[in-house]
Amino acid sequence: MAEPGRLMASEIAEQPAVFDRLLSDGRADIAAVAKRVAERGPRFVLLAARGTSDHAALYAKYLVEVRMGLPAGLVSLSTLTLYGARPDLRDVLFVAISQSGASPDLVDSTALARRGGALTVAVTNEPESRLAAVAELTVDLMAGPERAVAATKTYTAELLASYLLVESVLGRPTTEAARLPELAERTLGIDVDAVASRYRFADRLVTTARGYCYPTAREAALKLMETCYISAQAFSGADLLHGPLAMIDQVVPVIAVVPDGPGGRAMAPVVDRLRERSSDPLVVGADAAAVPGGAVLAVPEVAEELSPLLTVLPLQRLAWRVALDRGSDPDRPRAITKVTETY
Amino acid sequence: MAEPGRLMASEIAEQPAVFDRLLSDGRADIAAVAKRVAERGPRFVLLAARGTSDHAALYAKYLVEVRMGLPAGLVSLSTLTLYGARPDLRDVLFVAISQSGASPDLVDSTALARRGGALTVAVTNEPESRLAAVAELTVDLMAGPERAVAATKTYTAELLASYLLVESVLGRPTTEAARLPELAERTLGIDVDAVASRYRFADRLVTTARGYCYPTAREAALKLMETCYISAQAFSGADLLHGPLAMIDQVVPVIAVVPDGPGGRAMAPVVDRLRERSSDPLVVGADAAAVPGGAVLAVPEVAEELSPLLTVLPLQRLAWRVALDRGSDPDRPRAITKVTETY
Repeated sequence: MAEPGRLMASEIAEQPAVFDRLLSDGRADIAAVAKRVAERGPRFVLLAARGTSDHAALYAKYLVEVRMGLPAGLVSLSTLTLYGARPDLRDVLFVAISQSGASPDLVDSTALARRGGALTVAVTNEPESRLAAVAELTVDLMAGPERAVAATKTYTAELLASYLLVESVLGRPTTEAARLPELAERTLGIDVDAVASRYRFADRLVTTARGYCYPTAREAALKLMETCYISAQAFSGADLLHGPLAMIDQVVPVIAVVPDGPGGRAMAPVVDRLRERSSDPLVVGADAAAVPGGAVLAVPEVAEELSPLLTVLPLQRLAWRVALDRGSDPDRPRAITKVTETY
Repeated sequence: MAEPGRLMASEIAEQPAVFDRLLSDGRADIAAVAKRVAERGPRFVLLAARGTSDHAALYAKYLVEVRMGLPAGLVSLSTLTLYGARPDLRDVLFVAISQSGASPDLVDSTALARRGGALTVAVTNEPESRLAAVAELTVDLMAGPERAVAATKTYTAELLASYLLVESVLGRPTTEAARLPELAERTLGIDVDAVASRYRFADRLVTTARGYCYPTAREAALKLMETCYISAQAFSGADLLHGPLAMIDQVVPVIAVVPDGPGGRAMAPVVDRLRERSSDPLVVGADAAAVPGGAVLAVPEVAEELSPLLTVLPLQRLAWRVALDRGSDPDRPRAITKVTETY
């Protein structure tokens, strides 16, 4: 039997190379898709995904709202597949994000969206998949085969592809993104072993962030659920204060993602309230070094809209480490498979 | 000091009367707002809310997508308030849902949406609030003052107001909704004490549903977090199978909401997978009686799009009961207040 966690570790380590590949070899294809999008001039954007890819869709939603200035929504797939909704989608850009491109509900929804008049784009690691076949345009993630059940490199590839697509539609330079391979390499060098020991015996945990890094909180929670079987819950920092804060006490571990920028700054009152509840949060992000006392994972500085591509990296490694420490194999979580078929 | 949980108990019990009031006294005002919406003929709907009201917004999103056939999105408020997004919202209906109408980020976002060209509607229990002042149109929930920190009657009033608004825009009869006061009264008669004992010592819990009742799963989880301090996580049944199922074992309690209709039927494979994991789920809904063995809360039958107004009722009472059994006062959860100010 293979060494536990070997696949996930190697796929985590590949991320700087995946970034590099998308930034060089992927650029022309993304520019071609962006040109078609710009020509159609969508007025609304819908994003469709499940699981890890849903967190990439959430990131893309922030990019669309903030950078493109367009209203956007995450599709509730069941409205199309279970309830037979046939919405009028003229002027809509419909982006389906999926590592495998195989989930039947996503494939069917994309086909229906195209029939409803939307411009459909598949963002997938499998350009020969059914999803790519039904969509009008395809962005290939070029991440290479992903074999660990817990997705890592395809997640950050989905983030980068979304960013490059949006910036390309807007005709903006992507010089800041060119720094990512090197910054990701440095970020992967962060030692997580000491903080991992904090969660060795945790059975529940809360992650929190605001804005661009909220998807990092969501994705970190999912990795901890999938590989460590921890009941990990993600909250936007604002939503946390609207109720769930009540359940936080000195024995509920909290991980707060605090990048440099407006989203990170808006986390300051949240971290203060957590400290009042004696929760001793682990702070992840560029501003982390500024946090007096407490546990910190300091991530290199980058423009906030790109910070989710870095802040998730030590948290992927944290999930991997905690799973191994607990005697689990993060490559083969119990009860789930690589491709989930839902309708 | 007042009897613990007295406020929440009486506000839960008021819900049939609140339904009755909205259906009679509220009807003309809702029809007037609906007329303005129909005249504008929006092509896209944005919903904005925080906390409990966010679950009502999610319900409204299903109604808009399925019944109105329009694409819809839940607004990420931080894009407007933190990142300065100024989207083009012509042809957009922007609905802000809030019990208090006081949260600054919601007020500011609604003002910005109106300036961006959207038709803005405030759905609130406080028609004199700042939110109502900045919105072009207001739907008054008419639920009477809500004094318990954990919202109950304003939540179901938000659901019913959303339903009546959508049906009124579509010019459809609401005869099925007229049954709600009586059905709600019957639903509140369901004995929850026996199942409450199952969660007396739980520190984590999972709720799950698909489609229209997914908001019930979300809202039940929030009530359990707020009043019982349980780490309660809600998943769409489909998303649960995409990863989080791994953390479910025989000691993680699960509550599955299974109404009559397509959403409920789509839960059958989810409940099967949960049983394989020995999770012994509590099943809530009209089909619940059909579930062989296992714990059940059987809710009266109603059209599935109205089932969320009933399925949440026994779960509100469950949260109240478990909180009292644990010696907490559900009227005054630790660490949170009735009106949360976030930016």
